[in-house]
Amino acid sequence: MRFLPTAARLGHSLNTRCIQNFAYSTLAPPIVETLQNPPPSNSLITVNGHIKSLRYSKNVGFIDISDGSSSKTLNVVFLSPDKVLERNRFKVGQSLSVTGRWIESRGKQAYEVQYNLDNPEHQIKIMGDVPEDYPIQKKTHSLQFLRTLPTLRHRTSTLASILRFRSKVESHLTDFFNHNHFVKVTPPLITSSDCEGAGEQFQVESLKKVSSKGDEFFGKPANLTVSTQLHLEVLAQSLNRVWTLTPCFRAEDSNTNRHLSEFWMLEVEVCYIDRLQQLTALTEAMVRHVVKAMRSDKASFFDLTEARFNKDEAARINERWETVLSPEAWPSMTYSEAVEIINKVKCKGRSKGRMEWGDSISTEQEKWLAGEYFKSPVFVTDYPAEQKPFYMPPSSEGVLVSGKPTVSCFDLIMPDIGELVGGSMRQSDHNKLLEEMKRREMNTAEIDWYLSTRLNGSVPHGGFGMGFERLIAYLGAMENIKDVTAFPRASGLCEC
Amino acid sequence: MRFLPTAARLGHSLNTRCIQNFAYSTLAPPIVETLQNPPPSNSLITVNGHIKSLRYSKNVGFIDISDGSSSKTLNVVFLSPDKVLERNRFKVGQSLSVTGRWIESRGKQAYEVQYNLDNPEHQIKIMGDVPEDYPIQKKTHSLQFLRTLPTLRHRTSTLASILRFRSKVESHLTDFFNHNHFVKVTPPLITSSDCEGAGEQFQVESLKKVSSKGDEFFGKPANLTVSTQLHLEVLAQSLNRVWTLTPCFRAEDSNTNRHLSEFWMLEVEVCYIDRLQQLTALTEAMVRHVVKAMRSDKASFFDLTEARFNKDEAARINERWETVLSPEAWPSMTYSEAVEIINKVKCKGRSKGRMEWGDSISTEQEKWLAGEYFKSPVFVTDYPAEQKPFYMPPSSEGVLVSGKPTVSCFDLIMPDIGELVGGSMRQSDHNKLLEEMKRREMNTAEIDWYLSTRLNGSVPHGGFGMGFERLIAYLGAMENIKDVTAFPRASGLCEC
Repeated sequence: MRFLPTAARLGHSLNTRCIQNFAYSTLAPPIVETLQNPPPSNSLITVNGHIKSLRYSKNVGFIDISDGSSSKTLNVVFLSPDKVLERNRFKVGQSLSVTGRWIESRGKQAYEVQYNLDNPEHQIKIMGDVPEDYPIQKKTHSLQFLRTLPTLRHRTSTLASILRFRSKVESHLTDFFNHNHFVKVTPPLITSSDCEGAGEQFQVESLKKVSSKGDEFFGKPANLTVSTQLHLEVLAQSLNRVWTLTPCFRAEDSNTNRHLSEFWMLEVEVCYIDRLQQLTALTEAMVRHVVKAMRSDKASFFDLTEARFNKDEAARINERWETVLSPEAWPSMTYSEAVEIINKVKCKGRSKGRMEWGDSISTEQEKWLAGEYFKSPVFVTDYPAEQKPFYMPPSSEGVLVSGKPTVSCFDLIMPDIGELVGGSMRQSDHNKLLEEMKRREMNTAEIDWYLSTRLNGSVPHGGFGMGFERLIAYLGAMENIKDVTAFPRASGLCEC
Repeated sequence: MRFLPTAARLGHSLNTRCIQNFAYSTLAPPIVETLQNPPPSNSLITVNGHIKSLRYSKNVGFIDISDGSSSKTLNVVFLSPDKVLERNRFKVGQSLSVTGRWIESRGKQAYEVQYNLDNPEHQIKIMGDVPEDYPIQKKTHSLQFLRTLPTLRHRTSTLASILRFRSKVESHLTDFFNHNHFVKVTPPLITSSDCEGAGEQFQVESLKKVSSKGDEFFGKPANLTVSTQLHLEVLAQSLNRVWTLTPCFRAEDSNTNRHLSEFWMLEVEVCYIDRLQQLTALTEAMVRHVVKAMRSDKASFFDLTEARFNKDEAARINERWETVLSPEAWPSMTYSEAVEIINKVKCKGRSKGRMEWGDSISTEQEKWLAGEYFKSPVFVTDYPAEQKPFYMPPSSEGVLVSGKPTVSCFDLIMPDIGELVGGSMRQSDHNKLLEEMKRREMNTAEIDWYLSTRLNGSVPHGGFGMGFERLIAYLGAMENIKDVTAFPRASGLCEC
């Protein structure tokens, strides 16, 4: 005889219908679900969440409840506010569970929950109290102030909506790559190679010494990756089209609103391509897809814009999305042409800001080019070889500026923020790659494994990387990248 | 006058129709796409990929091409194999680009590409050569041997199919959580806390000393996370339901087929729950959803099973998926009941293997319980408090074994592999949590930020974690976790 499982005794049973629709019914519905599929009028309903705001009139009290599932709140109306005890019990920030009557509302919101102290079926319970100085109040808080509250700041509608937005954007990217036959892979974060060679790596070592392995856990020095590109190239040559969305780490000693020491990077490698324009068109299609998908999801657009303290910010989101969705293909120009434009238009008649061929295009110049001159995202291609890493091949014929070596690469420059994506063709010829590494006096032994793929059925390929937080900050119209990531890390910043 | 963008000059234009269907037409279609939407018979087609196998008869030669987009290959038939030059040029592993005639085939495959040396439109080009000793040949290689070839092993159909499977499973999980209103978040990997307190952490420090910040880059010692749970709990209390799929790191000095130093963990936290059964039912719904979705995607099922060298392995995949999809809800029992079953049935009349209450259930015992006794995934709940971390609250009333403290937690045990998921309710009462930490002589100051959420509108919640590689290994019937991750990391193992 089989032992009777506890499941049966405790009434644990699986609702198969629900699995088919992905829905899972034993959890209390979050506010977003209740508003999407409202229960019948006058039915008894339980709502959980934090008190967002409170107000009382003589005969009636109002509590706005938010549960983080939406920027929409649910209004609880309670009918005995004159009882002093009742009145003083509630504070903004408390977590509450209210059982009351679900009714169509005469107020701004379509529905409300009526709580009647005299109805024995109605219940109101404070699940978690707050201290008198609970810092998140109804008034507008500056994002700078909120950054000092890492564990509480996502209780504000703005920062919660940004995390929900980020989650949705990742989903849309997943759809885009799935439909284009890309395989999502997970290159390692701990590596013995330095992809960029910039020395801005974090070293990793076991806290406990592992005696059997000598001094080092991995038997050699190991670092956190600054870019997964080299590993991704290897995987692309086996799987054709690959992408990843993965943490990367840079020990830059800069505490700006554009940099993090730990950030998420979307990286793509694609095989069997022979023109840079195949990569720029793929990049454009990807960004357009995300915005188009977000735009057509009205509830999500509302969730993001309605959550903002400031109406100007909602307008800016709208404007940026329109810019991305321009009916014209985004302009593309070479680095040399970009320098020409900057000198001819931006610096007309002035010596200040004029560029020599070979100078880096500054972030300010990038913002001018995309934001003011083209008023569009723009691709700048074929930069001077000396500005770029060893793995980029020379520009295609016809692009080369005589006597000045450029490489087959591109940056995608966005209005307001500058560089969003950087990519290139990859040198797939072993001897040329080795020659370039030697010219740069690089240690070839360290990435012998990478070079070896060029000797074993090498295929032409290219790819790009996009800082995921930059995309979210741009599309969500947030100025500081620290406000689009849950617990940002930077030099001196590792609070918890 | 606006500067004429290069885009226009180079014919870079965006195919808007294609963006709407996510498709991106300027890339050459991969084999999976060509087979899904075959071109008209007799049309000219270009196929790219690696040579998988070669054979010649008197009048005709055959080359099987694989491009990593599918376990299916495309057969190129060429009509002048008697020309010695032609014959000796080709080797297994070379990357090839063939332009020829797309025709319906009389062979096993529905289509083939005919290449005719005498047709000037037909072309065959070796893009990348291989050395004479190229190791990936048509014969079956052991997975152990393939592990010695980290950059080439995914050219085999088995290992490539596992990475494609992994990518699909992640997509299905994304769908599941989206539809259930979970927000995907990215807790930090660099942290100053130790969630498990086991000391098995990697320490992180900048290679370049940052003089302005004193000795440490973050101003304090920083480690790689072993579990993102504590941060996830904080985010759940703002966003209601959260999940993440993120790398975690453990410096365990064990080189087994079940452990990695760097692995991906799926973690979930959900608020406003009051029973452990809400978590086990969510876990069951999640795993069932993935298998159901994979099962209904016939092409993916074929891709995974057809890629196996060994027919037994395909049967094992099928059997495991059937086990998950059992029409009965998975059995659930308490730890105490599990101990009773093990002693009553497995150890009947034997002293060896008998358990005392309080003993850990070994992996072997877990495999017996799920695989042999129940022949089903099983939940074991309410383990002894001493086996579990500080944040788990006591078991619900009625579950407590008199005098023996247990906590409200569960493990999901799978046949063949043992533990797949571990989860629990989380103690949401500040004083009780603090008391338990003091009882365990823990440093409370270090996670003060975590404790503080219990004072600021604390809500009842719980969650679980699942080793992603273990799920893939189980559902993909791979024995060694190192074969389901691209570049595995373990003690002494950090090849590239």
